[in-house]
Amino acid sequence: MNYYEKTIKSERLYEGAIFDMEKLTVELPNGKIAYRDVIRNPGASVIVPLTDDGYVIMVKQFRKPIEAVSLEVPAGKMDPGEDPLQCAQRELKEETGYTAEKFKKILTLHPAPAFADEALHVFVAKGLSKGEASPDEDEFIHAFKYKLDDVIQLIQDGVIRDSKTIASILFTARLLETGGLDF
Amino acid sequence: MNYYEKTIKSERLYEGAIFDMEKLTVELPNGKIAYRDVIRNPGASVIVPLTDDGYVIMVKQFRKPIEAVSLEVPAGKMDPGEDPLQCAQRELKEETGYTAEKFKKILTLHPAPAFADEALHVFVAKGLSKGEASPDEDEFIHAFKYKLDDVIQLIQDGVIRDSKTIASILFTARLLETGGLDF
Repeated sequence: MNYYEKTIKSERLYEGAIFDMEKLTVELPNGKIAYRDVIRNPGASVIVPLTDDGYVIMVKQFRKPIEAVSLEVPAGKMDPGEDPLQCAQRELKEETGYTAEKFKKILTLHPAPAFADEALHVFVAKGLSKGEASPDEDEFIHAFKYKLDDVIQLIQDGVIRDSKTIASILFTARLLETGGLDF
Repeated sequence: MNYYEKTIKSERLYEGAIFDMEKLTVELPNGKIAYRDVIRNPGASVIVPLTDDGYVIMVKQFRKPIEAVSLEVPAGKMDPGEDPLQCAQRELKEETGYTAEKFKKILTLHPAPAFADEALHVFVAKGLSKGEASPDEDEFIHAFKYKLDDVIQLIQDGVIRDSKTIASILFTARLLETGGLDF
């Protein structure tokens, strides 16, 4: 079965601070022409900061698109020239103040593959030491410590709705249960 | 702590087939002005179709933004006037051919709360009967049956990268293990 959509034309419609937008003209497998609006951004790193005694460092911030304060694992987009691990180290420090001795990549996630090219690189961070957070000047974000089991309960209760957080936390819990996080 | 960003102005920059885009002018908690580019769409329903003998019905389709064939749980966006359950029933039938006797909502997900208002309504579907799929004319999508354990292995192997699929499958597995899916 051929699923491939060949790009015939690509038009940049918008360039923004967080993402750009392109309209692609594609040829479908049946030869017909169709259009795809695509959001492009540089990707981001996501960190699940795990303490030795079973806590996770989470962050709270206002998410304008959903008009809500959202409880999430720390994350942030890659700076130019940065690799995913460097981004994870920097964002963990900036958003929570914590540094970590060890990082292990556990997942790559596409949050919205129907309309965005974004890839999220998910790391578990261990060997945590607390320091001072240093968010961007106009970034209102604060770190809180939760027991992993309580984070899972907040998912079950519908309080945590951020998809990357749910995928990352549940996968981390599964790895812990199966001994897959001994690093 | 006040996190709220008040909307000062909202400007529609783009209207597309899949999403619209707005530029919002907001007032930050410190009184400063900032801008937020926001993708708006009507939301979608996601279905985890579970057979009595531990299989999940999955779909394969090409996702142009990531230039890859993606293995995902069935999902599709809400038609005007449709509620999430109606959308789940319709999309399950269209994409896989299956109908289900029972649907249970298990999660609401925000796939990209940093830049999109999209909400995904995730249902587990049980009591499945197989019929004919009826995708849209230019939609190239096919259904495949996988053991739930094999889907989890494909997540672990990095083959499945769609965030809604990973969140939905891992949460379903957890509910099954804790008896939370007896409906």
